[in-house]
Amino acid sequence: MPRISIDKFENLIRQQVPFIAALGAHLEKLGKGTATVRMSGKAEFLRPGDSVNGPVLVALVDVAMYAAIMSLIGRSEMALTTNLNINFLRPPPLGELVAEARMIKLGKRLAVMEATVFSEGYDEPVVHATGTYSIPPDKGK
Amino acid sequence: MPRISIDKFENLIRQQVPFIAALGAHLEKLGKGTATVRMSGKAEFLRPGDSVNGPVLVALVDVAMYAAIMSLIGRSEMALTTNLNINFLRPPPLGELVAEARMIKLGKRLAVMEATVFSEGYDEPVVHATGTYSIPPDKGK
Amino acid sequence: MPRISIDKFENLIRQQVPFIAALGAHLEKLGKGTATVRMSGKAEFLRPGDSVNGPVLVALVDVAMYAAIMSLIGRSEMALTTNLNINFLRPPPLGELVAEARMIKLGKRLAVMEATVFSEGYDEPVVHATGTYSIPPDKGK
Amino acid sequence: MPRISIDKFENLIRQQVPFIAALGAHLEKLGKGTATVRMSGKAEFLRPGDSVNGPVLVALVDVAMYAAIMSLIGRSEMALTTNLNINFLRPPPLGELVAEARMIKLGKRLAVMEATVFSEGYDEPVVHATGTYSIPPDKGK
Repeated sequence: MPRISIDKFENLIRQQVPFIAALGAHLEKLGKGTATVRMSGKAEFLRPGDSVNGPVLVALVDVAMYAAIMSLIGRSEMALTTNLNINFLRPPPLGELVAEARMIKLGKRLAVMEATVFSEGYDEPVVHATGTYSIPPDKGK
Repeated sequence: MPRISIDKFENLIRQQVPFIAALGAHLEKLGKGTATVRMSGKAEFLRPGDSVNGPVLVALVDVAMYAAIMSLIGRSEMALTTNLNINFLRPPPLGELVAEARMIKLGKRLAVMEATVFSEGYDEPVVHATGTYSIPPDKGK
Repeated sequence: MPRISIDKFENLIRQQVPFIAALGAHLEKLGKGTATVRMSGKAEFLRPGDSVNGPVLVALVDVAMYAAIMSLIGRSEMALTTNLNINFLRPPPLGELVAEARMIKLGKRLAVMEATVFSEGYDEPVVHATGTYSIPPDKGK
Repeated sequence: MPRISIDKFENLIRQQVPFIAALGAHLEKLGKGTATVRMSGKAEFLRPGDSVNGPVLVALVDVAMYAAIMSLIGRSEMALTTNLNINFLRPPPLGELVAEARMIKLGKRLAVMEATVFSEGYDEPVVHATGTYSIPPDKGK
């Protein structure tokens, strides 16, 4: 069982990360070290070329990774991103976007994850990212 | 002289990148291959620990790099981020944030830049990032 | 079928990339967009802490990605690494090292891949990397 | 004054990192948080296109960053690379290569640096990299 519930995670985002909550991202699934987050495109996400703006995609990746960490170590809102590396593979149109995050390595101090973003209706990913997060003391493996 | 004016760049953002415009980021200076963007903290940018949320900082970096490209190749809104690597060095408090972007290499197809984000009143940077952008055909060096 | 054979790839490395050939890395398997490369530890790869030196692991990742590209576009030794992002997850001891590379996106100009390195006898990966390569003209998808 | 001498650093490399020593890289200058490493091209570094192989450039970057850390925290061979992000800007010919590393942030647990590699006789850099290293306990700022 994941060590945080979907409801508790969504409450945490609503109450403490308003910028992410305002994007309308929702945690859909949570496994042990995995998380799936979905977001519906909004006109204000568009950039030239009628695709979704890069930083919106980064926000989606970041919240999916944040959930994947807590699925393993429980509520720990003080987990901090230390590094994000994002490859933008193709510009996604304004449909549904789904990010799938997966823990690669959970250490005592650092967690390394990867995330892939899909644009619903297309097989190929639109974004691939890796991220490192620092783990609050006493929460790590 | 930069090949786009500050006014024209800000208009482009207002009209075509509403998500960035809504953050309240302003292009303050533009050189040849350099750009300085400033943004005032807003309560909705906060994350646990009373610091600014990572994706907001990424948006700031991205817009500064977008400006730095156009300073060299002129208006070219179809420049696309292909890779961003962001090191979050310390969590910035909710003050003024300033991003300084600088071209490292402008090629025919790809532009590589770096950007540093400072939190006003502190000497040490809060974010360091490198980014690669694909250049629209016929715009590259 | 992969568009280059294991033998042809190994010959190319021996004749044109002596630094990699000298490491003793061997292409073990080649699929469509995937490659597995194996290397035996040697005393000269060690660094303090009795683990394998980072740049040796990078070389292993790089050659596996180079093979994965050619599995899809055929012999194309002029494919060039433009970006590598490497997460060193745990220091590997001096045993057998196996890198598995996989194409994430093959475009016209750029190929994006990921690679994971395992230390034989351990379940957990020791390195995770993503890389971008520029594709020689007329070779891309 | 740097907290390690050039001689002591070079001895450490010779005795404990034979792979790097064999490349013929030499620490030329050491400041407080900065290091300059020089390496002469050798035929075995070549790759197709008559330029220097990527992993050799990574090794050069890595040793310069390793020196830059020790310039601030003293001898600490157990500093470990946790992340390297390398942008290969242009393929360098087989001449002298010079890497300049600089500390961006020295924390308690992690150090973040950047490095630029130049090919002697050319103004423009051939490689730009950022790296994160974990600092042995009790050595950090």
